[in-house]
Amino acid sequence: MERKYDLVAIGRAALDLNAVEYNRPMEETETFKKYVGGSPANIAIGSAKLGQSVAFIGKFSDDQHGNYIRSYMEKVGVDMQYTVTDQEGHKSGLTFTEIKSPSESSILMYREEVADLYLRPEEVNPEVIRNAKTLLISGTALAQSPSREAVLKALSIAQKSDTRIIFEIDYRPYNWKSAEEISVYYSLVAEQSDVVIGTRDEYDMMENDGISDNNATVKRLFDYRPQLVVVKHGVQGSYAYDRSGAIHEGRIYASKVLKTFGAGDSYAAAFIYALNQGKDVPSALKYGAASASIVISQHSSSEAMPTVEKIEQLIADNE
Amino acid sequence: MERKYDLVAIGRAALDLNAVEYNRPMEETETFKKYVGGSPANIAIGSAKLGQSVAFIGKFSDDQHGNYIRSYMEKVGVDMQYTVTDQEGHKSGLTFTEIKSPSESSILMYREEVADLYLRPEEVNPEVIRNAKTLLISGTALAQSPSREAVLKALSIAQKSDTRIIFEIDYRPYNWKSAEEISVYYSLVAEQSDVVIGTRDEYDMMENDGISDNNATVKRLFDYRPQLVVVKHGVQGSYAYDRSGAIHEGRIYASKVLKTFGAGDSYAAAFIYALNQGKDVPSALKYGAASASIVISQHSSSEAMPTVEKIEQLIADNE
Amino acid sequence: MERKYDLVAIGRAALDLNAVEYNRPMEETETFKKYVGGSPANIAIGSAKLGQSVAFIGKFSDDQHGNYIRSYMEKVGVDMQYTVTDQEGHKSGLTFTEIKSPSESSILMYREEVADLYLRPEEVNPEVIRNAKTLLISGTALAQSPSREAVLKALSIAQKSDTRIIFEIDYRPYNWKSAEEISVYYSLVAEQSDVVIGTRDEYDMMENDGISDNNATVKRLFDYRPQLVVVKHGVQGSYAYDRSGAIHEGRIYASKVLKTFGAGDSYAAAFIYALNQGKDVPSALKYGAASASIVISQHSSSEAMPTVEKIEQLIADNE
Amino acid sequence: MERKYDLVAIGRAALDLNAVEYNRPMEETETFKKYVGGSPANIAIGSAKLGQSVAFIGKFSDDQHGNYIRSYMEKVGVDMQYTVTDQEGHKSGLTFTEIKSPSESSILMYREEVADLYLRPEEVNPEVIRNAKTLLISGTALAQSPSREAVLKALSIAQKSDTRIIFEIDYRPYNWKSAEEISVYYSLVAEQSDVVIGTRDEYDMMENDGISDNNATVKRLFDYRPQLVVVKHGVQGSYAYDRSGAIHEGRIYASKVLKTFGAGDSYAAAFIYALNQGKDVPSALKYGAASASIVISQHSSSEAMPTVEKIEQLIADNE
Repeated sequence: MERKYDLVAIGRAALDLNAVEYNRPMEETETFKKYVGGSPANIAIGSAKLGQSVAFIGKFSDDQHGNYIRSYMEKVGVDMQYTVTDQEGHKSGLTFTEIKSPSESSILMYREEVADLYLRPEEVNPEVIRNAKTLLISGTALAQSPSREAVLKALSIAQKSDTRIIFEIDYRPYNWKSAEEISVYYSLVAEQSDVVIGTRDEYDMMENDGISDNNATVKRLFDYRPQLVVVKHGVQGSYAYDRSGAIHEGRIYASKVLKTFGAGDSYAAAFIYALNQGKDVPSALKYGAASASIVISQHSSSEAMPTVEKIEQLIADNE
Repeated sequence: MERKYDLVAIGRAALDLNAVEYNRPMEETETFKKYVGGSPANIAIGSAKLGQSVAFIGKFSDDQHGNYIRSYMEKVGVDMQYTVTDQEGHKSGLTFTEIKSPSESSILMYREEVADLYLRPEEVNPEVIRNAKTLLISGTALAQSPSREAVLKALSIAQKSDTRIIFEIDYRPYNWKSAEEISVYYSLVAEQSDVVIGTRDEYDMMENDGISDNNATVKRLFDYRPQLVVVKHGVQGSYAYDRSGAIHEGRIYASKVLKTFGAGDSYAAAFIYALNQGKDVPSALKYGAASASIVISQHSSSEAMPTVEKIEQLIADNE
Repeated sequence: MERKYDLVAIGRAALDLNAVEYNRPMEETETFKKYVGGSPANIAIGSAKLGQSVAFIGKFSDDQHGNYIRSYMEKVGVDMQYTVTDQEGHKSGLTFTEIKSPSESSILMYREEVADLYLRPEEVNPEVIRNAKTLLISGTALAQSPSREAVLKALSIAQKSDTRIIFEIDYRPYNWKSAEEISVYYSLVAEQSDVVIGTRDEYDMMENDGISDNNATVKRLFDYRPQLVVVKHGVQGSYAYDRSGAIHEGRIYASKVLKTFGAGDSYAAAFIYALNQGKDVPSALKYGAASASIVISQHSSSEAMPTVEKIEQLIADNE
Repeated sequence: MERKYDLVAIGRAALDLNAVEYNRPMEETETFKKYVGGSPANIAIGSAKLGQSVAFIGKFSDDQHGNYIRSYMEKVGVDMQYTVTDQEGHKSGLTFTEIKSPSESSILMYREEVADLYLRPEEVNPEVIRNAKTLLISGTALAQSPSREAVLKALSIAQKSDTRIIFEIDYRPYNWKSAEEISVYYSLVAEQSDVVIGTRDEYDMMENDGISDNNATVKRLFDYRPQLVVVKHGVQGSYAYDRSGAIHEGRIYASKVLKTFGAGDSYAAAFIYALNQGKDVPSALKYGAASASIVISQHSSSEAMPTVEKIEQLIADNE
């Protein structure tokens, strides 16, 4: 299988506005520094920094913020030719971060009428998916039509062309209308993906049945397409279950935490990188954990994405 | 498999307002006679008249029209205990019919903010699906949220409980936002159903690729779950393709046509009846055609649904 | 003042579907007879039947119902050249009537996404208002944008061109978002009209203060533009207050009641006719009451609108 | 007339995010400094700094940005007890500024689903309006329901209680649906106000007839309630027309311009201050111009609002 792209990511690319003055409530923050943000954008950026060949499918606001996001992603090496520009006045999503202390932080998101949720199915280029080894789907892109249908179309194309589908559940409590709606679409996409990555909380939203048990989760998903299911438990580490029955535990690496934002995206970028490089699951878990550990000690989620060298150095230092 | 219901149908139940004075344009029609209408309601009614044990899943307006529809369906034997009543002021859908001549008729539908499209996933009772041999899904119920998610949930329950899923595409040009949206959801549900029934035009909308070829249609669907695919070609009859490669041609029965409304629903009711009775596909095609032939010679779509005796008599008369 | 039109009415024209079989609940009604309906349409039709020169401003559905309504109004003599046809798929409003007994009846209205509420300000022709002696505004047209702004524009043109403005409050509990919203727009338009006509209940909605007192109502309105305020109290008759301080009581005429629908519209048509003919207020009250008395004994609201002769005969018979 | 408040302002209070690094396009701006913004909030803040007794009517987001805006306004002395907090998840409006050069700047606004446009009529406290000498209405608050109706209610209360109504047209191209809609509401409110302040462009939007002539504008408005009409012509200064026929020309004061944002709000605050102090119109024009001149030389619109001393010093320096 010789394909042009190691990874194509679909979904939102947005603006993070990170508090310059931290260790205080946002009300007292006076200045904000801008970065590119949004889970699939961060993963695309992280993957490009790891030397992967990456393309992005998404819709951008026709304004200064949209221009900035797109040009930044281009600059770090993401192929942006399959993205489209919104013509209906939709805006880029915004995430203001509040960093009260290393352990206490929160975000304030602007997600009303954002351009990324207006990506239409006909704006998804089938060729780029057929030319990619892996398709990364972000669950947030399922929150609203027509982005929801664009993702379902991408999923269908990937299945037909044997592109490995990775579903990062990436739950954000915006735009969704009900817990049942979340459950319906998360289940639908998870069941048809090859790899599913999420926190225990995210699987709980998918299942919507109050059980919250990893074994029940994987038993259910292995009735369908998934080959590998990763459940993240925050500071307690993560577990990867594969269809053969093997369970792999991943631990986290100690770090001087500035904020916890971006941990999941850097984890996913490095984990996918390792899988794409043909490494085994235990190694991929280490790559994910090391990458996350590096990003949470820095100010941004995107710019802080590490190189392979840094990740491997951290792993080596901890063996 | 001993199950309480032969069939559970999900989707809309609405009001038909049929021109009393026909063979004239609707502008000159002075009075309208009301009947229960809506494809899945008609199929449920038709199935009950054929002696099947039938339940309905749907949402009804909290007004005189909703009351009427529900009580009519109950009267003909459909189990209505799993239906819910809308509490937000939504109305029953309406279909005014215009019968200009036996070959020229049209409809005028009221489908804005109708109760049936507000059925929520949490209002779908899983037990009735687990207790049914077949689940009938009407494509119109996919046109809008939250009814769309209610259907996707019903589909998922049926799969997990080995309830045979019959997808009647039932295209109506209302509520949908784009051709791509139609294609995404029709494909998604068709691929996960056991039996798919539609007109050639409806498959074209599902495929949205301009090919319009039965062989291409069935080749594509047989990559997924379907066992049987029925393509209807109006007066030229219909074709049933089964997964084994067999193709069965169904012909129509001559009839004194009053109007063509209701032909599809009566076809589906009798076709499903025959399958549920264990008859072979060529026989099921005859049952469907005979039933359609009877309904198009009468004024209503629901009240005109024939008994088994009438259908079998018509078939016998034409052997 | 030589003007082409005695009256121009702005607002909805819709379809009434009146129970053919009455003295029973609507659930048991089998057939419905169609008529033109909607307060300003009824008043325009009634006025034309009284020999007035009448034009209509409104938006019509581009379908059989819209065609019918427009052609019926044209047939009875209403000038329809200033009406527009909806191009966005909006429908004609519908009113199903239930006639349980002469004293107990109700209606079931379809008012979602109706064409009349999509009349835009730029679709209001200023010339027809400048060429009319009176402008009739129906309060229902204020329920939603852009019809609301179309009415406000018509009001402004009428003021600038000394066209007498008659505001028929015509409350319908559809489309409005809150009691405060109703109060804001009813007050705004009433204060800027020359004549206000409504039931006591309608003035209560306008005032939204729980006082419900005719004297308070007229005191408040006479601080603004109104010259004449008519408050209807159902079977207890009505009161007309003029700015000079005079109070005129109007009584009703006994009638064999079939249903009460249409009473208000026939009242308004005859009352306005009398004012336009230069009759005094006590006479106008008699014309209104006589006209209402005739309509409530018949099956429709529009077709039943009486001629001048009939009204004057009834008045004479009762002197 | 002894009233507690010199001024009560109704409408939006929002967040400005001003480019820290200026003289470059926003794409290259890295950090943004936050300030309170929004025309009526700026005018309230400016008025408080001028020693006026000021209250605010508005709706605030229930998040860090809403908290900040409210507490900042309180800190500078605006009475915030009549404001309400949004309970439906609406956000604070945002304005990112781009300062390319002193003469070339632009803004990027987030105005979708903002809390200020969800102020409801029942949330407008009548007492504060009755206790104020002047009510300041911002035209942007008319862009959407229910804020539109809240303003119309405030206008009605002010008229009944002889509170002087100042209408600052404050056009923003967001949330409005059509040019006709803008014209209808701007006209309606302008005609019922005592003082109208706007740029020539804003009056053009109000009139929507392509004439663009000050004399025509004032002739039209003086048929209604206005006593004073101020038309601003940017760097060419402004004209104030009073009902007696007098025309007063106001000139601008030279300034080292950093950006032009905030000029209008500071002008309005000082102009209203002067009127409230009983100064004549030519003096009020000087106060307005001097205040504007000071604000455009500084980084913010709100924090930069000058004291009376600074304004009077600048006027004296230029006599």
